[in-house]
Amino acid sequence: MPGSGTDRTRPPSQAPAPVIILVEPQMAENIGMCARAMANFGLSEMRLVAPRDGWPTGGGLKKGATSAASGATHILENARLYESTAEAVADLNHVLATTARERGQMKRVVTPAEAMPPLSERIGQDERVGILFGRERIGLTNEEISFADAILTFPVNPAFASLNLAQAVLLTGYEWFKATGGEAPFREQNLSPPATRATVLSMFDYVEAELDACGFFPPGKKAVMTANLRDILHRLSLTEQEARTLRGVFKSLAEGPRRRKPEAV
Amino acid sequence: MPGSGTDRTRPPSQAPAPVIILVEPQMAENIGMCARAMANFGLSEMRLVAPRDGWPTGGGLKKGATSAASGATHILENARLYESTAEAVADLNHVLATTARERGQMKRVVTPAEAMPPLSERIGQDERVGILFGRERIGLTNEEISFADAILTFPVNPAFASLNLAQAVLLTGYEWFKATGGEAPFREQNLSPPATRATVLSMFDYVEAELDACGFFPPGKKAVMTANLRDILHRLSLTEQEARTLRGVFKSLAEGPRRRKPEAV
Repeated sequence: MPGSGTDRTRPPSQAPAPVIILVEPQMAENIGMCARAMANFGLSEMRLVAPRDGWPTGGGLKKGATSAASGATHILENARLYESTAEAVADLNHVLATTARERGQMKRVVTPAEAMPPLSERIGQDERVGILFGRERIGLTNEEISFADAILTFPVNPAFASLNLAQAVLLTGYEWFKATGGEAPFREQNLSPPATRATVLSMFDYVEAELDACGFFPPGKKAVMTANLRDILHRLSLTEQEARTLRGVFKSLAEGPRRRKPEAV
Repeated sequence: MPGSGTDRTRPPSQAPAPVIILVEPQMAENIGMCARAMANFGLSEMRLVAPRDGWPTGGGLKKGATSAASGATHILENARLYESTAEAVADLNHVLATTARERGQMKRVVTPAEAMPPLSERIGQDERVGILFGRERIGLTNEEISFADAILTFPVNPAFASLNLAQAVLLTGYEWFKATGGEAPFREQNLSPPATRATVLSMFDYVEAELDACGFFPPGKKAVMTANLRDILHRLSLTEQEARTLRGVFKSLAEGPRRRKPEAV
């Protein structure tokens, strides 16, 4: 039903994203691992074309699928079953077909990193987009590939090019997530601002004076050794807090045993 | 043995790449799947720190590991065993630690896409680089993270953030491969150059004359309908071969039954 709307099958809480269509998947476990990979990257709509071992509809899920999904059961529960690939893509506006090998079709070939930004634009304009993934060993038929607007393939080591189904879905989801602003779950805690030059120079003055007092600098070498030491310390790009910590370290070393309490032994 | 050379453990045929260090992996199957993910993206050196179920050295491999590796046994066979993480990183110059959660360390945090280009530069300058991956459930200890120069983390859906060990290695390898020039295994066959304007205009002339002869254009509408049709056909950006094919399609339709041989029925 092309053109009949964009939100029929999408759970209301989910942001629009490509539909993942598994064509005749053989193992329930692989379906589960694909669901998990989808959930990792915010994909939610799965379609299954004639899974080899069938698929329970209306309650109950394949056991192997559920355990492999590691909690992504909402995707399995909402997965829709189709009898043919043609039916599974009928309501979509734009379709990619994944293949690992050259298939002799005069079709545009894109990697996930190239494909996802334009797919995101299409979806932003309310197009319905789907990505076809073929059978575990033999992939998609040429007829199934002919349903697609372009071929999606993965940059892999040509000497070892076998990606399994869930890995292919994982890389696709990963690039989708990146293309739609997905970020690292956390960043460095930079609670302290960069050290002011005054703090750093004061640390230099302190440590150089102490070293001088210890007789660290051989005669005539103080200038060049001081410059080297400052280069090392500058390279740290210390925060204010770190500069104070490091000054404390130098101070403690310099004052050392003089301030330690006498030990029991 | 820092500084003792850069090619001691690397098989001579392999391009230099980051070392993948699995810290106390529990399941032999996971080690195998990591090996497979490494092979997919041209990583070859694996180190194992105290695998829970041991690791056979000097011939023989864990059965579950070998089958999960799907042929990447050369990586398992060359995997080196270490008793501690400190020993496993001792000869490296630069180390990343993967974590899924904020760990309260004042360390730079990078994603694989950010991390790999600079790692590639370091490796190009003969630095030895390693990436630590923690235990399946509990990851790396804070002490192990303190061995690293920076934290590597993965952009994932915060609502479903669990990546398994092999998936984390897969995404790391994928970005390494991309950062070092890894390309799609094939591209579109564009054997024919773009059509010349002469071929396209000649096709237009042909089809418009045929349509005119069929009475396709209502009175007074020919100019606007012709322009629309040309817009549709221009949008195809046809190759020379495709323009000729399409012209043949129009011609065959126009001449149609007149040239068909009489059918038997």
